[in-house]
Amino acid sequence: MTPQLEDLFAFLRFPSISTDSTHSGDVRACADWLIQKLNSMDLTTELHQTPGHPIVIARNEHQPDKKTLLIYGHYDVQPVDPIELWDTDPFEPVIKDGRVWGRGSTDNKGQMLAHILGVEETLQADGELPVNLIFLFEGEEEIGSPNLVPFIQEHKDQLACDAIAVSDTGMVAKGVPTMGYGLRGIACCEVTVKGPSGDLHSGVYGGAVANPATAVAQLVASLHDADGKVAIEGFYDDVRPLEQWEREMWAKVPGVSDADTLAITGSPETFGEPGYSSAERLWARPTAEVNGIGGGYQGEGSKTVIPAEAMAKFSFRLVPDQDPADIMEKVQTHLQKHAPAGVTVEVEVGHDGKPFFADPNSANGKAGQAALKEAFGADPVLIREGGSIPIIQDMKEILGVESLMLGLALPDCQIHAPNENYWIENFEGGIRLNQALLKELAK
Amino acid sequence: MTPQLEDLFAFLRFPSISTDSTHSGDVRACADWLIQKLNSMDLTTELHQTPGHPIVIARNEHQPDKKTLLIYGHYDVQPVDPIELWDTDPFEPVIKDGRVWGRGSTDNKGQMLAHILGVEETLQADGELPVNLIFLFEGEEEIGSPNLVPFIQEHKDQLACDAIAVSDTGMVAKGVPTMGYGLRGIACCEVTVKGPSGDLHSGVYGGAVANPATAVAQLVASLHDADGKVAIEGFYDDVRPLEQWEREMWAKVPGVSDADTLAITGSPETFGEPGYSSAERLWARPTAEVNGIGGGYQGEGSKTVIPAEAMAKFSFRLVPDQDPADIMEKVQTHLQKHAPAGVTVEVEVGHDGKPFFADPNSANGKAGQAALKEAFGADPVLIREGGSIPIIQDMKEILGVESLMLGLALPDCQIHAPNENYWIENFEGGIRLNQALLKELAK
Repeated sequence: MTPQLEDLFAFLRFPSISTDSTHSGDVRACADWLIQKLNSMDLTTELHQTPGHPIVIARNEHQPDKKTLLIYGHYDVQPVDPIELWDTDPFEPVIKDGRVWGRGSTDNKGQMLAHILGVEETLQADGELPVNLIFLFEGEEEIGSPNLVPFIQEHKDQLACDAIAVSDTGMVAKGVPTMGYGLRGIACCEVTVKGPSGDLHSGVYGGAVANPATAVAQLVASLHDADGKVAIEGFYDDVRPLEQWEREMWAKVPGVSDADTLAITGSPETFGEPGYSSAERLWARPTAEVNGIGGGYQGEGSKTVIPAEAMAKFSFRLVPDQDPADIMEKVQTHLQKHAPAGVTVEVEVGHDGKPFFADPNSANGKAGQAALKEAFGADPVLIREGGSIPIIQDMKEILGVESLMLGLALPDCQIHAPNENYWIENFEGGIRLNQALLKELAK
Repeated sequence: MTPQLEDLFAFLRFPSISTDSTHSGDVRACADWLIQKLNSMDLTTELHQTPGHPIVIARNEHQPDKKTLLIYGHYDVQPVDPIELWDTDPFEPVIKDGRVWGRGSTDNKGQMLAHILGVEETLQADGELPVNLIFLFEGEEEIGSPNLVPFIQEHKDQLACDAIAVSDTGMVAKGVPTMGYGLRGIACCEVTVKGPSGDLHSGVYGGAVANPATAVAQLVASLHDADGKVAIEGFYDDVRPLEQWEREMWAKVPGVSDADTLAITGSPETFGEPGYSSAERLWARPTAEVNGIGGGYQGEGSKTVIPAEAMAKFSFRLVPDQDPADIMEKVQTHLQKHAPAGVTVEVEVGHDGKPFFADPNSANGKAGQAALKEAFGADPVLIREGGSIPIIQDMKEILGVESLMLGLALPDCQIHAPNENYWIENFEGGIRLNQALLKELAK
């Protein structure tokens, strides 16, 4: 085993599950290991305590004539449940079929370590880096980064940089280097519909009072036209139209055709906003989704009640240039306007995050593309992603710098699921990518 | 304590919970007590074993020149959960504030025992009954009477009669004798909507596949017009229109005004089919209710998934002359016609029961009204009920005889709930009612 894989194995053995307070000590031990590793590379390190898990910073000696690159990553991992579906111990990594198997192997320890080891190789080869480097690693990404935004705001000057690199996204297929330049944002809310003061017998009272389960369904149904378009007034007002080059490029990106979407999801057919391909629907169009709906009796058999209340949880995926606060206002107006008779409707606004968009052909963007081409020997594809990584937009707003999203996660890496794994060729490619990126940005 | 209350207490002490197999012995012991009581009145008794709990029959010596009256009741009771909400032991009856408190006190032991004791008093006073009597008591009403219909079919000749009396319904208010002449029927089904093969991340896949929670909500919403009318094609085709005398009488019945419905249910407002009062909506108009809806994440906070499936449980309350099988066919046609794109819709048909209607001014109906007036000293009100008692329609179909529904349950009797109770004045009124009924029917 190479020393680099040994480092990866050591890093993966920490069960640094940030959601579970019984693992606080493991998260801290993992941060300590990281500090030790970065110290061994002669970087200057800082371990910042937070109300939650520590933030780790490392930097080389900065020189005023060099560009500054900030590399973000997170050393915390998702829980491992359901543990019985794992083929191997999630925290005792093994190599099999060209991959390393274990929790965090891709998300995000394996990807961030590739950057660390790329820096180590460059330092070993050249004695110095061609850029001023800032590593910014957090231990709370899987719980929504509650302490990172305040930290960046407080340390804005120390984190000032010219470019940001993040490898926490996807690579569309093996051997197809992928640069992300957009992410969807999100706005969430929960609706509670209340009717009678307690569950009622549907024979004795059915017909004379409104049924909250019916009412919540009517609210959910009001969100879309029959063809799948979101029916909230003004919802699409600020959506940035797709550019022609995006449609052309995405049509050629492997793994995101309608047929691929069908195969991956197992849905009976694809369905969405008319006039757009699956990739376009996922990456460049906003959505209104019900993540949960519930009310009344859901057990076996029947129980003929009119439930006292029913609820639905909504999330809206937003695209540039939609604003979560503006959308949530429109959603609330819509829900109150469509509130059925005979019930009360309460809306509780949840978390949100702005969409992200960066010009892939800016100077930094071109450096990122060149580094990907050098590391993987092919022209990169340029994509957006359907998910939300609010911290990327937050860094853009606080530090004024757009992130390069240089993902190394393949579609079969089982992120957040049992049997998470990481292709060793992507680990090695990631190390080369980091080295190429340092050089390209320095040009 | 009177011997009659002593009988009631003894009867109530059996925890004859038919749904709970650990109470099978108690149900049987209760049947044995009943047999003993009926034997002590010099009636001929039969205890019929069934695959479930026994059916108890008792009769006097029948004479060809007398009319035959069948009195139905059930000696099983509902479970007592949540036990912590009871103020007293559900199976150790107590008298307080003019009522007997305990499980089964109203539903149905207290009501059926009033008939037994009425017969006993008549026998003690006159030495014989003015009618041929058949008591038919089952121990499985609270589990849907699975063995009673086959029993009645097999013993059709032995159960032949001219009138049927059932005291298992409501009295609208204290001192207001009430005769029921209609019941709603029921038809149930459950809908399962399936989309992707597993839950999907709503960021990664949202917009390109249909969401089963949205789809099930659209199906639910399709069942009603905005004004609350059921929107299934042909749903109202066979509904018997309300007669003028019904609307006039119900407008005067205490406890069923719109204001009463509002107060009892605690709903923010009454709501239902336009053009009908609450009583009319409950007693003479059919409904489509969602008894349960569920899909996706229903816990605390948010989890941004597209659920693999979602479901809804429906029950349709039917009125004369709707047919459950016909309605269920129309429901299925409707659901398939409105099945949203991108998902599959499966419908599982559940139990059903026909609506019941009997002319309250038939000879038997007039005897019932006269008996109520004699027992309670006031003109009875004539009502229908919103709930379903399928056995009443089954007896009509098998035996060709319509039941007189002579309910003694007041709205505050807490049937099926903690602190069930029975007004002693209704117990005594029920005994008088039985004696008057025997006489009136014999006329």
